[in-house]
Amino acid sequence: MKGNLIIISSPSGGGKGTLIKEVLSSTAGIGYSVSYTTRPMREGEADGRDYFFVTAGVFESLIETGEFLEYASVHGNYYGTSRSQVEREINDGRDVILEIDVQGALNVMRAAPEAVSIFILPPSFEVLRERLTTRATETAENLSLRLKNSFGEVALFDRFQYAVINDDRTKATDELRTIILAERLKRDRQTEAIRVILDSFDISKL
Amino acid sequence: MKGNLIIISSPSGGGKGTLIKEVLSSTAGIGYSVSYTTRPMREGEADGRDYFFVTAGVFESLIETGEFLEYASVHGNYYGTSRSQVEREINDGRDVILEIDVQGALNVMRAAPEAVSIFILPPSFEVLRERLTTRATETAENLSLRLKNSFGEVALFDRFQYAVINDDRTKATDELRTIILAERLKRDRQTEAIRVILDSFDISKL
Repeated sequence: MKGNLIIISSPSGGGKGTLIKEVLSSTAGIGYSVSYTTRPMREGEADGRDYFFVTAGVFESLIETGEFLEYASVHGNYYGTSRSQVEREINDGRDVILEIDVQGALNVMRAAPEAVSIFILPPSFEVLRERLTTRATETAENLSLRLKNSFGEVALFDRFQYAVINDDRTKATDELRTIILAERLKRDRQTEAIRVILDSFDISKL
Repeated sequence: MKGNLIIISSPSGGGKGTLIKEVLSSTAGIGYSVSYTTRPMREGEADGRDYFFVTAGVFESLIETGEFLEYASVHGNYYGTSRSQVEREINDGRDVILEIDVQGALNVMRAAPEAVSIFILPPSFEVLRERLTTRATETAENLSLRLKNSFGEVALFDRFQYAVINDDRTKATDELRTIILAERLKRDRQTEAIRVILDSFDISKL
């Protein structure tokens, strides 16, 4: 049985990183695809865990070899999703969560229309601004750019199948997990188990 | 915000009645539509709670007035779903669970394509037969008819969006609840809450 490809997106500061970490630590059967990026590593991040941090030259050679399910330039840096990693996890029956920016999410939806898509919304613009400001990993210029971009990003919420409003971390984590578990109960995710049951309906038993 | 219409179906003996009772007792925000039937009341059932038990004459006059979202004759008795009850619950923002036979489920899907549809499967034909036999509410003739019908019913599983395999009551109840909660997180179920958030993205705040 194949896993689901689950796209989770939000504007910067929407809190998707934190929520996804909590879902991963509390839900079985989820793999994770580590993305590639050319942006600098932040404090507390690790190469190969949070991202593969590569140079623009390496990134561009990976584009050439077709290694990216999607890639995009966001806030002046490349971000890309490894196609080979995603395919391996899904073929092994694990769901894969893709934590990507809104433009990247739309690209993956086009490339993989069967993907499950979830948009995480901040409860308000004010909360988004506060979160980005207190994160303090941004220069003033970057902060301003992210806030400006967020207007276009939230407007694209209607391209996503599900919406999670991140006003409470525990509630939002529970909601993400609920969506992931429910998607495993889709009939076409269970064809093998159902086939075994149907085989037991043998007319000679009547 | 409108509720969801949730169709839960299974072959006779699939256990949907028990599971639905447990979901109703443990999940907020779910209304219930009491169906009409012309079959005799069983021990432990109550009129207006389990069904509205009516004569064939009353049932047929309700057909005439268009009161049924769907109705069907199953095992020689009429079963019908009250359109007015369902609409009232959904317009009040509550989900409505319809516990109906497979033919009735297909009829509701045609009449209400936006409905969520869940098929409950027994783990095997042997378990289905054992459950129907130990229920002991059936005559031998009825039991034989239900078992025979079950072959055609399970074959229609692929018309449903979700499948729940009822091999463990607690697990199956949890899965039903998970599907119901996840469907509330569909983006188009949350348009009003999202509208409020989007309104806070006022460009003059930048």
